[in-house]
Amino acid sequence: MSAMKRQTPSRTAVLLIHCPDQKGLVLAVTDFIYKNNGNVVYLDQHVDPERRLFFMRIEWDVADFTIPDDKIGETFGILMARKYRMKWQLYFSDEKPRMAVYVSSLSHCLVDILHRMHSGGWKAELPVIISDQPDLEPVARKSGIAFSCIPVTAGNKREAEKAQLRVLRAHRVELVVLARYMQILSPEFISQYPSRIIGIHHSFLPAFPGAKPYHSAHERGVKIIGATSHYVTGELDAGPIIEQDVTRISHADTVDDLVRKGHDLEKRVLSAAVWLHLQRKILTCGNRTVIFS
Amino acid sequence: MSAMKRQTPSRTAVLLIHCPDQKGLVLAVTDFIYKNNGNVVYLDQHVDPERRLFFMRIEWDVADFTIPDDKIGETFGILMARKYRMKWQLYFSDEKPRMAVYVSSLSHCLVDILHRMHSGGWKAELPVIISDQPDLEPVARKSGIAFSCIPVTAGNKREAEKAQLRVLRAHRVELVVLARYMQILSPEFISQYPSRIIGIHHSFLPAFPGAKPYHSAHERGVKIIGATSHYVTGELDAGPIIEQDVTRISHADTVDDLVRKGHDLEKRVLSAAVWLHLQRKILTCGNRTVIFS
Amino acid sequence: MSAMKRQTPSRTAVLLIHCPDQKGLVLAVTDFIYKNNGNVVYLDQHVDPERRLFFMRIEWDVADFTIPDDKIGETFGILMARKYRMKWQLYFSDEKPRMAVYVSSLSHCLVDILHRMHSGGWKAELPVIISDQPDLEPVARKSGIAFSCIPVTAGNKREAEKAQLRVLRAHRVELVVLARYMQILSPEFISQYPSRIIGIHHSFLPAFPGAKPYHSAHERGVKIIGATSHYVTGELDAGPIIEQDVTRISHADTVDDLVRKGHDLEKRVLSAAVWLHLQRKILTCGNRTVIFS
Amino acid sequence: MSAMKRQTPSRTAVLLIHCPDQKGLVLAVTDFIYKNNGNVVYLDQHVDPERRLFFMRIEWDVADFTIPDDKIGETFGILMARKYRMKWQLYFSDEKPRMAVYVSSLSHCLVDILHRMHSGGWKAELPVIISDQPDLEPVARKSGIAFSCIPVTAGNKREAEKAQLRVLRAHRVELVVLARYMQILSPEFISQYPSRIIGIHHSFLPAFPGAKPYHSAHERGVKIIGATSHYVTGELDAGPIIEQDVTRISHADTVDDLVRKGHDLEKRVLSAAVWLHLQRKILTCGNRTVIFS
Repeated sequence: MSAMKRQTPSRTAVLLIHCPDQKGLVLAVTDFIYKNNGNVVYLDQHVDPERRLFFMRIEWDVADFTIPDDKIGETFGILMARKYRMKWQLYFSDEKPRMAVYVSSLSHCLVDILHRMHSGGWKAELPVIISDQPDLEPVARKSGIAFSCIPVTAGNKREAEKAQLRVLRAHRVELVVLARYMQILSPEFISQYPSRIIGIHHSFLPAFPGAKPYHSAHERGVKIIGATSHYVTGELDAGPIIEQDVTRISHADTVDDLVRKGHDLEKRVLSAAVWLHLQRKILTCGNRTVIFS
Repeated sequence: MSAMKRQTPSRTAVLLIHCPDQKGLVLAVTDFIYKNNGNVVYLDQHVDPERRLFFMRIEWDVADFTIPDDKIGETFGILMARKYRMKWQLYFSDEKPRMAVYVSSLSHCLVDILHRMHSGGWKAELPVIISDQPDLEPVARKSGIAFSCIPVTAGNKREAEKAQLRVLRAHRVELVVLARYMQILSPEFISQYPSRIIGIHHSFLPAFPGAKPYHSAHERGVKIIGATSHYVTGELDAGPIIEQDVTRISHADTVDDLVRKGHDLEKRVLSAAVWLHLQRKILTCGNRTVIFS
Repeated sequence: MSAMKRQTPSRTAVLLIHCPDQKGLVLAVTDFIYKNNGNVVYLDQHVDPERRLFFMRIEWDVADFTIPDDKIGETFGILMARKYRMKWQLYFSDEKPRMAVYVSSLSHCLVDILHRMHSGGWKAELPVIISDQPDLEPVARKSGIAFSCIPVTAGNKREAEKAQLRVLRAHRVELVVLARYMQILSPEFISQYPSRIIGIHHSFLPAFPGAKPYHSAHERGVKIIGATSHYVTGELDAGPIIEQDVTRISHADTVDDLVRKGHDLEKRVLSAAVWLHLQRKILTCGNRTVIFS
Repeated sequence: MSAMKRQTPSRTAVLLIHCPDQKGLVLAVTDFIYKNNGNVVYLDQHVDPERRLFFMRIEWDVADFTIPDDKIGETFGILMARKYRMKWQLYFSDEKPRMAVYVSSLSHCLVDILHRMHSGGWKAELPVIISDQPDLEPVARKSGIAFSCIPVTAGNKREAEKAQLRVLRAHRVELVVLARYMQILSPEFISQYPSRIIGIHHSFLPAFPGAKPYHSAHERGVKIIGATSHYVTGELDAGPIIEQDVTRISHADTVDDLVRKGHDLEKRVLSAAVWLHLQRKILTCGNRTVIFS
């Protein structure tokens, strides 16, 4: 439909920037774009007054931009970033990040991601699924995606992660999505993909430590269960939060019902988080995220 | 409007029952009501298969009931409860439980409760407001409600609670609502009102211990904040949960915004919990509630 | 896990009953079950005081029930239903209703249903997918489900529906799920499956008539979009409502974003409605549903 | 607490701008602020690609701004607005808009607004409450706010509105909040306060025309009821939507329950809409709003 085609310009660049706040930052960035003949289509900027930090997401039409794509970053770095001590990332709207999905035996998150890939809304490539279990190989095969089964034992963790890294590099993966992968990744592995590993965990009010949180939540009679998607850091389930949501439950729900509703929630929250990442709408700063709307 | 008047029968009794499960329980209770010429208007029953416990809420029109009101409990106790080891409570729809609201200096929950009392939906009396601070006396005075200010210090807690008990008894209070009362009640005090003290506390995903949870939540960048209303027990914030709800927040919310959104949530959740109690829709069993719909 | 297995009794029967209200109905039904050695595990009953109608869902363990399965309905009909003018349905927990899913070219609802079937939570068989378009045949084939493509034109509607009925009968289908099937079924067809065709439509506040509701909603700047799942009747989108939900949108959402969020909502609401049907939790009466919790 | 005080700068100005899109708009506005020594603390900008319209909200610290407050608008108008055909509004964070609340006999929305005024979060003055009924005068009197009762009959509508306008002008009112005021304002009256009259109406899925929507919704068995707050225009309930929300209901809810839940929703949605207006977060363009986050 032509009406829809007109809604987004053919091709845009996105800059995500954060730096110490000072006067003139918005001006400097917009001036850089304007002078090089870019047309800003979206700008969201935010100052954290407590930390005196400046955050910005700016997206512009590059159709007539006078700096070639492969020089934009370099030029911006020299003219702008150094001067203002900016940390920045540059993306183009027609890039398709290459993604690996990690699974164990539960399929709900993976199936949800696969459908979103196939039905066209997601701008991403999914060349490989990695698992410590063989269970979901048929799902991968049906979708024509490579499946790499790398068993993890108490003794071989280091080797297993090295094998995973070889797979990730062979497929030039930029983003790792842990879709209910049941192993804990080592800090060494995680440090290879800073702010590029997205995980999901269930969250309860109050929190229930231990191996069977759904059983504990059921026994405690909670009325709400939640799920949290976050960037994975060395500290378990404590990385920057990307997205959270909850669902209502009642005393009549069995543990099975809780698990079923929890799975529905997990897939929704994880997919929403990955979508935000793919849209380049997330900036991380310390242990927080800024999510541009 | 006559159309609305017809919706609920003029006067009903409510029995809340729980006991070990066995065959014939529903039959026995409904037979008791039917034989005495009662008409059941609402019955909700639930078996917890794990604990083999039976829960029931039954409400019947007492217009033609052959047992007089003041003998129903006694008769039910002799004929039914003893035989089936039932724990039970009996209420009548035209009773108005007498309620005390405890406050400190924050007024949002109190004001919400007062308006719900005045606008007619709540079947309850509110003869007295108790506080450890003088701040909200004007609110009480405007509403024509007694205000009892009983300061609490490190040294006088026992005496202060005794003074509170005298006030509660003088006003024949059956239900205590802690509307952001900032003191911790002693187990001795709480034991006087089992399942009859309702409190509210904010809840976060993840949980933030310590004195400034909103600051912690803000620093952690959570996307959702919650509130939990519960029956108060000797263990702080760990009693049976009655109602929970959440609200979404973003990185752009300041700590002030979080506090403001949290207050909105607290009053909504606390009032919803008190409403359920007044409707006689809550059974507590161990540390759980069964909320009849 | 043994803990989960104990949660639900091995095999239960469910009776859904509605009839004019009168004294003794609950007693009569529970007496019927008790005398024949059934143990009630769940009972939810509700009187609509305006219409003086009685609604009941009762579920009991049939392990020791003295009436054989295939005589329960007949016996209940003779002893109870005639006397009290009851309309009733009887189901067993180990039955798996046979379901057909109708689709056109959009796959989101179908994929969601397929995953819920495969991952085990749904007690149903899905022998056939029917479509007026060939597009989704590969999805059916991957899942090993028969795919029946029956094109519908202005001129062949009657014949097409006859062909559909032959397919439905050949597969002994009891429940038809319209998963974004883009044809309007004739009243004659619908009358073959009363309260057994479930559809989904988007809903907006305010309502937008016409062919492009998402465009209209976008132009009007609505902040919420909704979806409604209902039993299909002769009047378009006006049958008894089973489930509804909404999602928030903003001015920054394009029409494409609205469509994407709408699809997410549609699949969630449709699957929730089908789940309630499969759990035998829905009674329809006139143009309303009673949803037992 | 000093931590909170630091969060927002002492004093800011806000510009809301919309105009035809063209290159360099963000640059031009930020350059204007920077050159005059302002520090941008918040910028949200959005291009509607379909309509080729540019929307911007920019907020800056005016502590060191070189243009005096009373010249900013004039200067901006001459240097910027004319050149780019901008429509714009200028506000200062320490202004307190003067608000009139219109009521009839229902108090829930008014009481909610009063509490938010008193508890300090709202930056506004509320000098007068206007009503066509005397019922809520005691509420006004308790709060020390003038109450102007102007009865409206079929014959005196024009005169009544003139009387209202005199009251509004006497109190220098800039914002009119219709808190369940049951009269329809004339287009002539409304034209005096463009985008400055905020109303609330309940919304249903599907829509129920007629005088008793709650009865219709109950009969139809809807599972969700909604409320919509909008700027009032000449067309009834059809002005630009500011905020919407919904609440779940069930078959067990009586019409009274629906009304009660509806009132809760109305006050929440209306107060949220007024809050957004007071925060200067709303731009209207045609029949849509842009709500800055």
